[in-house]
Amino acid sequence: MKNYRILLFLSVFTFIFSCKEDKKATPIEPETVVVSRPLPSWNEGKTKNDILAFVKNVTTEGSSGFVPVENRIATFDNDGTLWSEQPAYFQLFFALDKIKLMAEDHPEWKSTEPFKSVLADDMEGIMKSGEKGLVQLMMTSHANTTAEEFEESVKNWMKTAKHPRFNQPYNTVVYQPMQELLDYLKAHGFKNFIVSGGGIDFMRAWAPETYGIPSNQIIGSSINAKFDYTDGNASIIKMPELDFNDDKAGKPVGIYQHIGKKPIFAAGNSDGDLQMLQYTDSNTYPSFQLYVHHTDAEREWAYDRESHIGQFNIGLDEAIAKGWTLVDMKNDWKTIFSFQE
Amino acid sequence: MKNYRILLFLSVFTFIFSCKEDKKATPIEPETVVVSRPLPSWNEGKTKNDILAFVKNVTTEGSSGFVPVENRIATFDNDGTLWSEQPAYFQLFFALDKIKLMAEDHPEWKSTEPFKSVLADDMEGIMKSGEKGLVQLMMTSHANTTAEEFEESVKNWMKTAKHPRFNQPYNTVVYQPMQELLDYLKAHGFKNFIVSGGGIDFMRAWAPETYGIPSNQIIGSSINAKFDYTDGNASIIKMPELDFNDDKAGKPVGIYQHIGKKPIFAAGNSDGDLQMLQYTDSNTYPSFQLYVHHTDAEREWAYDRESHIGQFNIGLDEAIAKGWTLVDMKNDWKTIFSFQE
Repeated sequence: MKNYRILLFLSVFTFIFSCKEDKKATPIEPETVVVSRPLPSWNEGKTKNDILAFVKNVTTEGSSGFVPVENRIATFDNDGTLWSEQPAYFQLFFALDKIKLMAEDHPEWKSTEPFKSVLADDMEGIMKSGEKGLVQLMMTSHANTTAEEFEESVKNWMKTAKHPRFNQPYNTVVYQPMQELLDYLKAHGFKNFIVSGGGIDFMRAWAPETYGIPSNQIIGSSINAKFDYTDGNASIIKMPELDFNDDKAGKPVGIYQHIGKKPIFAAGNSDGDLQMLQYTDSNTYPSFQLYVHHTDAEREWAYDRESHIGQFNIGLDEAIAKGWTLVDMKNDWKTIFSFQE
Repeated sequence: MKNYRILLFLSVFTFIFSCKEDKKATPIEPETVVVSRPLPSWNEGKTKNDILAFVKNVTTEGSSGFVPVENRIATFDNDGTLWSEQPAYFQLFFALDKIKLMAEDHPEWKSTEPFKSVLADDMEGIMKSGEKGLVQLMMTSHANTTAEEFEESVKNWMKTAKHPRFNQPYNTVVYQPMQELLDYLKAHGFKNFIVSGGGIDFMRAWAPETYGIPSNQIIGSSINAKFDYTDGNASIIKMPELDFNDDKAGKPVGIYQHIGKKPIFAAGNSDGDLQMLQYTDSNTYPSFQLYVHHTDAEREWAYDRESHIGQFNIGLDEAIAKGWTLVDMKNDWKTIFSFQE
């Protein structure tokens, strides 16, 4: 129950030490090159070849590994797999920004912790409020609101907020090679799902447009919701109670409850994704396990075994032991973000 | 929490008094007529015209009510809306049949209630075991098994069990006009979902094939599940604890958590569907609310306000007051089941 909240807010620590990084603002250049070969942002090599060979095997009728289209389920972690998760989970930036926006209606927050520290950009003060304070910030920014108001608040934030290092909207800090992979799988009859420890409603406000994945194919952590029908007005109210923690062993459970089928393709980047990859690996159909390894400190970040965010330790060992595909961001990806091209 | 269990087993009462009904076995005749006009099993009239006019309005670009394809969400109740729910919820027949199958490995059940009564087909004895006994039967037949074993057990049952009145497999006791409606909506860009008080895993074992709706578009009541990873074997274990009751006010919540969008079309048949229809009715896009009214005692059953199963009382009042579409099964449907043609 507590993991979801703690994970999100542990990232504050990293935020404190990294938000002063140099900002490399680069204007977004429109994509004009038309390419017909698959996965153009992936460098030639074993990783790319293995992906292409797998897709060919499971989609070629008569091949030894052919998988009927209705069983071509692909699941993708989001934070650190489809978009960045440094210097802190982007959902955390949303939560803090929303608290600041809400402060106008809450003059008492100026003298009440943990809100006082948020308004003063005092990260140490926030952390001092402890788990209780952090949960309070999380629930204040995500609950006691209608589903529609919450969605609107995320959409507005996405339009205006900028990533502290890249000075770009957060929904552009997404990995171009992974977008191409999503498109490539979809073109081959796969149904792509996001299976993230992040908030399901937070993602659904922007991910469908960004990734081309419909809202019902987005699975994440959730808080409870209740139906309200007052004076003929029907609405969903988001409640300040954790419903489901879609991380670690929760990921296969989320897949089972939402999809009802075992994936044949799963991609993650951290120990939180290990169980999803193990579950996928148990498919009686041929399956593919992909781990994105953050190895590029220059264009993105380099971190794995010791990182507070996206720790990749036992998953890295298991990936090596089982021969799963490790994407070396620095060497396997020609481009990381479209704004860096 | 308790409603799901109680509802399913309350139907036992009805079962006791109706399982002696005359059996009208009719062989299944293959469908050979090719029709190009929509909804051929619906009689001409206001109901059919209203459906066609709604679909035309929301799918014609430039029309006042045009709805972009990604927002054409349709949600259907299952029991009593897509297939019959008399003389008892079909899932109950599965549960009792499964207990009988499992009895081979449980010789102690011959002398232990509530199992003893199940094995003796003694419905009064089952009911005497009270809620505790009923929950025990439900959990025994649905939990403490892997997801795959459970799915297999439902599939085997569906191949062999016959409906007590029609002497046909349960997955043929489905309303042909509603199948046509599902197909018609799908052909017009709608994404169809089942939103049922019945068990999500029970439905996913047969409904995709029967209705052409993929497993991830089936929402229902669920019990908890956990991920198990032992000696390198990954599996999902179904746990004997209720997770979500997808009935009444739970239906809009299930829609929100699974789909993340408000439907523009909703169909039900009982008071348990009322909140789903209210929720759909609150869509800012044009929306359609359909209630199947069981009015045909000869070809199916006639029941509404007083029925223990599928009670349709406050929903009927609200449908009349709001001008929602009431499908009169007897007069609106030319054919009910394909095996009756």
